[in-house]
Amino acid sequence: MSQNIKTDGTSRRSIGARQNPDTESAILDAALDLLLTKGPKGLTMDAVARKAKAGKATIYRWWPTRGALLLAIYGRIKGPHAHADTGQLETDISAFFDHVFAFWQGDAGRVFAQIIAQAQGDAEVAEALRQYRCDRIDDWLVVLKRADARGELSNDIAPEQIAEVIIALAWQHLLIDRLDAKGADLARIVASGILKGR
Amino acid sequence: MSQNIKTDGTSRRSIGARQNPDTESAILDAALDLLLTKGPKGLTMDAVARKAKAGKATIYRWWPTRGALLLAIYGRIKGPHAHADTGQLETDISAFFDHVFAFWQGDAGRVFAQIIAQAQGDAEVAEALRQYRCDRIDDWLVVLKRADARGELSNDIAPEQIAEVIIALAWQHLLIDRLDAKGADLARIVASGILKGR
Repeated sequence: MSQNIKTDGTSRRSIGARQNPDTESAILDAALDLLLTKGPKGLTMDAVARKAKAGKATIYRWWPTRGALLLAIYGRIKGPHAHADTGQLETDISAFFDHVFAFWQGDAGRVFAQIIAQAQGDAEVAEALRQYRCDRIDDWLVVLKRADARGELSNDIAPEQIAEVIIALAWQHLLIDRLDAKGADLARIVASGILKGR
Repeated sequence: MSQNIKTDGTSRRSIGARQNPDTESAILDAALDLLLTKGPKGLTMDAVARKAKAGKATIYRWWPTRGALLLAIYGRIKGPHAHADTGQLETDISAFFDHVFAFWQGDAGRVFAQIIAQAQGDAEVAEALRQYRCDRIDDWLVVLKRADARGELSNDIAPEQIAEVIIALAWQHLLIDRLDAKGADLARIVASGILKGR
């Protein structure tokens, strides 16, 4: 029985659903290339499948919606990112803005701006973006919890709201092409409202 | 000589550039209708001219770029808006968020979100949006100057930066479809950072 486990239906499905890293790379590379060269309209499942020499069914199984695919493209350029832990909230926030603004000056900024743009007319992309934003708020809650443990936060504003302001300012600078802003300036604005005794 | 002033080249040009209100209305109504029914791709100068039964040259003379036309459509739905003057900055800000979120729940929100989206891939729309945002920051500076005269502002943050945070939060709520947020909550976040003694 244990020798047959790979032929069992459930296992087969889970093997099928597991992403082959080479195929995954080929598909996401093809999708990024299409997005950058043809714009969001050129990013169709058909075109991705053709370019990556992959089955459309495979693409749909791994990324069921255009929104999921767009966010996966972005996630692949982005790679893992951990927030700075400088021991002070204002400098953590400053480091974040400097990091993300530098990162967005490359292809990543164009891709993320296109995701926001596509979300305005495509409910699936909007849903994927909302989920992505919730995940980023969760990342910030970890940073803010550390700051709170150090006694840095005032009680006036909920940590979720602080995270929302940080994210709103970051997006705004991307959307109006003001990625030359200084992280320290923005961090001071945010921090002046949330730190005790400011 | 004075009788001939209308045949002088400069005067004729200025008369030509003056907008006939009926024609202007017809063009902007047609453009809004195209934008809402066909999406931003359907908003071409050709289509607007056909639908409004106006000359393309007229449209181009009045709104030389797609960005200018898009902002004019939005301005027409929006009409004049004066910020509240409640005698307290936090309630002025709260009134603004409540007003703009209610307003954006109609066609206006779809139009403005499409302008932001289009700005991500069209330099002319981006420039028109940047200019529009600068004008809105100027509007806020009037409100903030009043607050400063009342002694409400701390010295930590420049008024321009306060205006930028307000606008960033407003756009963010539009872009992620969170127009149900309470103005008072957002105003408290902004105000907690900029008011003396908070």
